[in-house]
Amino acid sequence: MAAGLLVVLSGPSGVGKGTVCRQLFQLRPSLQLSLSLTTRPPRPEEKDGRDYEFTSPSRFQKLISGDAFLEWAVVYGHYYGTLKETVEANLDRGIDLLLEIDVQGALQVRRRLEEAVLVFLAPPSMEALRSRIAGRGTEDAVHLNRRLKAARQELSAYHLYDYLVINDGVEDAAASISAIIEAEKCKVKRGARPPAPGGEKR
Amino acid sequence: MAAGLLVVLSGPSGVGKGTVCRQLFQLRPSLQLSLSLTTRPPRPEEKDGRDYEFTSPSRFQKLISGDAFLEWAVVYGHYYGTLKETVEANLDRGIDLLLEIDVQGALQVRRRLEEAVLVFLAPPSMEALRSRIAGRGTEDAVHLNRRLKAARQELSAYHLYDYLVINDGVEDAAASISAIIEAEKCKVKRGARPPAPGGEKR
Repeated sequence: MAAGLLVVLSGPSGVGKGTVCRQLFQLRPSLQLSLSLTTRPPRPEEKDGRDYEFTSPSRFQKLISGDAFLEWAVVYGHYYGTLKETVEANLDRGIDLLLEIDVQGALQVRRRLEEAVLVFLAPPSMEALRSRIAGRGTEDAVHLNRRLKAARQELSAYHLYDYLVINDGVEDAAASISAIIEAEKCKVKRGARPPAPGGEKR
Repeated sequence: MAAGLLVVLSGPSGVGKGTVCRQLFQLRPSLQLSLSLTTRPPRPEEKDGRDYEFTSPSRFQKLISGDAFLEWAVVYGHYYGTLKETVEANLDRGIDLLLEIDVQGALQVRRRLEEAVLVFLAPPSMEALRSRIAGRGTEDAVHLNRRLKAARQELSAYHLYDYLVINDGVEDAAASISAIIEAEKCKVKRGARPPAPGGEKR
């Protein structure tokens, strides 16, 4: 059985990663979200074990000491990370995994798992991003500006990714990511093979 | 404007390249078939200027001497080739081109145009290929065996291609090639770019 594909999706805060991912899972039901651990408190709509595995800072730090993470990062004072063991077990079983993580995390994955596919989701324009972040209504002016500044920094890292998808529509963006997954599975260097040419009878 | 993509499609005789291509053009109407020149006489259903540009051996040899070909090959005693100038003019205009050529030709394209995307179409099994070739009804036993032998040789060249698509159904195979084109257009190293992060107003 072919090993699963590890797809890393990043993009600036507010670009619409969550919505695009939900649409992508509709298109590719076999794709699984790789659950991240975080020390951030759950938002009202979030469920432990579905959106994140919520955990304590002390447990998180123990896992860091034990080199248990494929990647981890601190974002706005909270820890986020992906356990190596979980990812490897799923890929070995042939499961395609989607990791929705930030730029710091994506680059750690690239260093440790060269065969990971890194996809960057970008807004169609900086204005579109600003309206999206402002439109959430959860941000005051200070936070809005901090997020926009972070977004600009994140955007400048796109060149470290394999693919860039512009989110100028949820369906098109999800279809493009789905096409990237399909194409990667056809890559000869990933092990795509014709039937054995030895003979007609096998 | 971004340059067009040059997609090279090869595969053993009888694998169903023609049928898959027709379906692919339905999926991607903007993709254009790059017309090959050939010295082979037209088959009854073929039209000059649509399927091939049919030409004389003497004109073909003059073009070879003038280094006018991106690739050319001799298959079963007939010349086939693609003019450099035509391909370059189309790519410069941002047109995506499909070249349906054999392994010899594909490797010449790879050497001259590194950014070409090489796709190999393979049968689901050698038996499926044999029935397809036999089923055409245009082949006697000698030709059938010659084609099967050639098919085995061609299959062994798959590892020189970027992608391998198994033709286990015309629609799926065409969808996979379409996904490969979509994915290649999202590649950062092909020039996919986010909006300029300079500011919100542009």
